[in-house]
Amino acid sequence: MAAATPSSYSITVRLHTAPDHAVVGQVATVIAQQGGIVTAIDVADSRHDRLVVDVTCSGIDASHTDQLVAAVEEVEGVKVHKVSDRTFLLHLGGKIEVKSKVPLRTRDDLSMAYTPGVGRVSMAIAKQPEDARRLTIKGNTVAVVTDGSAVLGLGNIGPEAAMPVMEGKAALFKRFADIDAWPICLASQDPDEIVRAVEMIAPGFGGINLEDIAAPQCFEIERRLRESLDIPVFHDDQHGTAIVVLAALRNALRVLGKELDTARLVVSGAGAAGSAIVTLLMAAGAKDVVMYDREGCLSADDDSLPPAKLELAQRTNPRRVRGDLTAGLEGADVFIGVSAPGILKAEWIRDHMASDPIVFALANPDPEIDPAEAAQYAAVVASGRSDYPNQINNVLAFPGVFRGLLDAGAEDVTIEMLIRAADAIAGVVTDEELNRSYIIPSVFHADVTDAVATAIAGDGKTTTGSGAGGSDGPAVTRPAVDPIEEVGTTPTA
Amino acid sequence: MAAATPSSYSITVRLHTAPDHAVVGQVATVIAQQGGIVTAIDVADSRHDRLVVDVTCSGIDASHTDQLVAAVEEVEGVKVHKVSDRTFLLHLGGKIEVKSKVPLRTRDDLSMAYTPGVGRVSMAIAKQPEDARRLTIKGNTVAVVTDGSAVLGLGNIGPEAAMPVMEGKAALFKRFADIDAWPICLASQDPDEIVRAVEMIAPGFGGINLEDIAAPQCFEIERRLRESLDIPVFHDDQHGTAIVVLAALRNALRVLGKELDTARLVVSGAGAAGSAIVTLLMAAGAKDVVMYDREGCLSADDDSLPPAKLELAQRTNPRRVRGDLTAGLEGADVFIGVSAPGILKAEWIRDHMASDPIVFALANPDPEIDPAEAAQYAAVVASGRSDYPNQINNVLAFPGVFRGLLDAGAEDVTIEMLIRAADAIAGVVTDEELNRSYIIPSVFHADVTDAVATAIAGDGKTTTGSGAGGSDGPAVTRPAVDPIEEVGTTPTA
Repeated sequence: MAAATPSSYSITVRLHTAPDHAVVGQVATVIAQQGGIVTAIDVADSRHDRLVVDVTCSGIDASHTDQLVAAVEEVEGVKVHKVSDRTFLLHLGGKIEVKSKVPLRTRDDLSMAYTPGVGRVSMAIAKQPEDARRLTIKGNTVAVVTDGSAVLGLGNIGPEAAMPVMEGKAALFKRFADIDAWPICLASQDPDEIVRAVEMIAPGFGGINLEDIAAPQCFEIERRLRESLDIPVFHDDQHGTAIVVLAALRNALRVLGKELDTARLVVSGAGAAGSAIVTLLMAAGAKDVVMYDREGCLSADDDSLPPAKLELAQRTNPRRVRGDLTAGLEGADVFIGVSAPGILKAEWIRDHMASDPIVFALANPDPEIDPAEAAQYAAVVASGRSDYPNQINNVLAFPGVFRGLLDAGAEDVTIEMLIRAADAIAGVVTDEELNRSYIIPSVFHADVTDAVATAIAGDGKTTTGSGAGGSDGPAVTRPAVDPIEEVGTTPTA
Repeated sequence: MAAATPSSYSITVRLHTAPDHAVVGQVATVIAQQGGIVTAIDVADSRHDRLVVDVTCSGIDASHTDQLVAAVEEVEGVKVHKVSDRTFLLHLGGKIEVKSKVPLRTRDDLSMAYTPGVGRVSMAIAKQPEDARRLTIKGNTVAVVTDGSAVLGLGNIGPEAAMPVMEGKAALFKRFADIDAWPICLASQDPDEIVRAVEMIAPGFGGINLEDIAAPQCFEIERRLRESLDIPVFHDDQHGTAIVVLAALRNALRVLGKELDTARLVVSGAGAAGSAIVTLLMAAGAKDVVMYDREGCLSADDDSLPPAKLELAQRTNPRRVRGDLTAGLEGADVFIGVSAPGILKAEWIRDHMASDPIVFALANPDPEIDPAEAAQYAAVVASGRSDYPNQINNVLAFPGVFRGLLDAGAEDVTIEMLIRAADAIAGVVTDEELNRSYIIPSVFHADVTDAVATAIAGDGKTTTGSGAGGSDGPAVTRPAVDPIEEVGTTPTA
């Protein structure tokens, strides 16, 4: 049996036992026999007739930890009272909170932060609305908006079930870019209603991060919001993914001495991520891209395609490839999968792709091909998995993207910004560091957020703080401002 | 000239002067001569040809500080570069921020707080939606929602200008009740749109605090949201005010040995606050209430009244009083004003009201009568002002109200809850403490939030922490939970 490593499948089992410490020893032995690792034993309560003992242990996965619990149940004199796991314990009460930045100790404090003093600040904004960015949180806030229709790989699970993901995203925004993001999980999946709700909440936010909204509705929602709002709107599943893919591809091509504009690319998946990836790669110079969806190859002469896909078909597949995935892979330099598990066979890489093929298998949680299998024949392999080299992770992009947008007071996101962001991420990997197993920096690399933010702003007008590496504080420190220069007015007299 | 006291009209003047410290002395002298108080002088920058000096000083009010700045401008060799004030400086960058409650230091942390671990938590909520209250922030969050149509006494200044007030409210929620509140300032004043937007954002919140929405739309918006949502909806301008008024009135009557059910009451103002006050006072036992609006006395036989006011008229004025305010004041025990400055004359209290009259002059920022003038003839006087005794301040109510609602997992707010909350606030003032100048506790009184929260929950199921008094931390500590009992599952095997 494979042994466990301390992982996210760590559980705490609360036992009721007779007041006999030997029993606890037996429990630890049983767990070890079953391949589990005991990491902590705490006596939560001790009475003359009973012990309450919390045993924390790790298993390989959920079914393994179930097996550990079953084994513990078998121990004479032990009753399993509760089983909880580390991930659930971490989520108790939610993952983010609000903090006041101002003291509220005295009546004088109240009279500045609230009535009557706050009235003068409100009137100043009423007179000069652009002051909201300086005098309220608007200059540093992002709404993380979802309708729960396409959450991770879990599908349409609705707004309440999407909350843990959106809270996690907000926590990442704070950790990696010192941005104050708040989850907004909407109780409607109607594009008209979503657009209107986001327009209505926009005044208090400096940016909108759309998240986990299903295609094709996500395209319309983003387009309409970009038209109507004067703050940037960014669907991370599309553009965040596209930025990181372009960054990784730049470096993969760099390692192999290939060029984007002459490379042949196959993209499997024509949903939110796939279409954004293709759009960005082509804006960055890619010319020969063949896209596949569940039905096969997208081709401009296929009049059965729905509008969004027809539009993609018209921009791609210049050689009019038809047929199954192997037809597209014939002579291809790059395979990018954002589709479904297991659809790419290792021998196809060997038999159909060009020399030194690049494979990005990004379906989550299970990729198009096991990265280790792909590596038998591919020159460079990347995936979404953290247990293989070259992890394509959106955390590399969205914090810096919004840091740059907010610092620049940007009203829009342009495709040039996205290309600059990708190049900035690619550029964090130095020539000395670059190799086939290191085409993309770690999400904890101290320079990433700053590099992306600076690239987004495009004019050097952005953060200057240094990254915080593995610490718990934000990776970006916002530039120090002189408050008197910032809020002071020049007397007109 | 009256001398200044350090107040919210403190300003910092940045001067450019010749590099001659005597000039700075002259500036200080001039400010003192004009009745200002210099509280700090800092040299921000010193060069061989110039000093940059920040002079912080207090004035009586905005026009007085303008006068101080003008006087400083007159000093030979001084140029006023910028003027900023303490309140504006405090608002720079906004007043609240988001904080992550979970560590995000390692890949393992990320895999629990975000993908892939978060997926299991999302699936648990998808299966059992009520778990959102335990496993997300929903159990402790409140949306502070406004359309900016009636902000403080400032009127219809819109959503951006309302932000400083809503942020202040969120900061107060944290400070006084450890609640995570987020400002939602809506870019529409259409009741249908407001209702729909709030319904749509509701999944992520445990309660809705409506704020500064104009009457009569606020009534419809609140009613419709209460019908459609399964989380409590509370318009603070209505019910928060009504709770504190009832609390203060209970104690005022207690001081004077009068009873609510036999007292005659006059309420001036039939907007959001006035109508909620009347409804709550009558639910608590008041029988003889006469209401006035701008047009005069509300009476059921006045068929020119709009629907909301006609409904109030039908419930009030049992003696069919007609005529101006003095007619209503004839024999009245209580005057409550939530209307406009200066509408009550001191001699009317003497000439028309019953013996031992009670006057609550609550118009903001300028009351219906100066409290000091009212005190010449009234037995008990209360106002919204912090510089007189008996301040009627909503901060006494809303933090505890929502603390109680959230802790109880309440889906609705009932009028019985509001009465219990008022009685709880009144009860914080002991018999020994009670007198005509102390009918209501300070907002900083350590027991208020807990007392209100417990009263709202009604079944003792609420906070047990002790208040934090003048400290900066939350006034309420949420009860400690045993996380393993809380998130653990009982094995079915």
